[in-house]
Amino acid sequence: MDYFPSALENLIDKFAMLPGIGRKTAQRLAFFMVSLPDEEAAAFAEAINDAVSYVQCCKVCMNLTDSELCMVCESERRNPRIVCVVPDPKGVLAIERSREYDGVYHVLHGVISPMSNVGPDDIRIKELVTRVCDGGVDEVIMATNPDTEGETTARYISRLLKSFDVKVTRLAYGIPVGGSLEYADDATLMRAIEGRMEM
Amino acid sequence: MDYFPSALENLIDKFAMLPGIGRKTAQRLAFFMVSLPDEEAAAFAEAINDAVSYVQCCKVCMNLTDSELCMVCESERRNPRIVCVVPDPKGVLAIERSREYDGVYHVLHGVISPMSNVGPDDIRIKELVTRVCDGGVDEVIMATNPDTEGETTARYISRLLKSFDVKVTRLAYGIPVGGSLEYADDATLMRAIEGRMEM
Repeated sequence: MDYFPSALENLIDKFAMLPGIGRKTAQRLAFFMVSLPDEEAAAFAEAINDAVSYVQCCKVCMNLTDSELCMVCESERRNPRIVCVVPDPKGVLAIERSREYDGVYHVLHGVISPMSNVGPDDIRIKELVTRVCDGGVDEVIMATNPDTEGETTARYISRLLKSFDVKVTRLAYGIPVGGSLEYADDATLMRAIEGRMEM
Repeated sequence: MDYFPSALENLIDKFAMLPGIGRKTAQRLAFFMVSLPDEEAAAFAEAINDAVSYVQCCKVCMNLTDSELCMVCESERRNPRIVCVVPDPKGVLAIERSREYDGVYHVLHGVISPMSNVGPDDIRIKELVTRVCDGGVDEVIMATNPDTEGETTARYISRLLKSFDVKVTRLAYGIPVGGSLEYADDATLMRAIEGRMEM
């Protein structure tokens, strides 16, 4: 189907490569792009180039940053002795939104997933172990997602860290605040009962 | 919420500007982009720049092309005396898929829509009238979408073209092939009865 000029077909292919973007949406986005004023489209292309050249991993916690250390690791108000392990940078954003946490992070950039061919060496577990091994960490909080892959990853890491003098905890499971018992699924209810706390 | 480096925030903003892309999806796309190998991301940026610099409107039919004339207008096997009017380049793609049509096109790049502040002068109607006025056109087929805005646009154009010696037709409405009477809506059924044909 060669009805579009090749530069446009190429742009459609690029958009279709993005996660969650199908062929039809890619077409729509590419058409929108060529309908933009030239300088706006150029700014888009530049934003991609800038992001790729300036954004790197924080050398301590592997979060995305544009300098050597990320904003959390750099801050003097954060407690570096507590490390929260999240699957990706969006996890950092989620925990920060709670305004409850004053420790630092470790970003895994993935979870162990045999189905997708992701093993322990493909994510940043080694860097976490080195960090704990170097000392100065009292507690590691596992904040992976409460699904099979997240659980597997959390268990794998906690087993690795057993040999070090560090407390390993994980986020509590339970009924979401504002949720209703009636609509909670069996697994969540089971976890909520298991994790019941004295009042 | 300044947890991401500014180059990344900027890229997220750009993605969020695209039609149908919300903040969360924009984040996902931007993260995906910075996770790509550098050369792939650069190729994406280049595809945008290329599309914007090479893609232009065909000077006859306003379809997108990378040369003066689009592939349809350039082809000698197409009948330039029949012009099919479509709202956008995707309309050309749709009609071409039918493999039934051997005329040429006119791409309006929009429809008349008072709700979105799009008037007749904002889309390529003038170019169509000039084309008909210059002669050499026997029939104009309106292939705008069967909704209020498409209908309004089609009626507006057909009224404009009345003063010229040209036949104005429109695509037939009716039950979709493979569709079922039971699920056809009232308006479609009414149109199907109105447009009934002898067998």
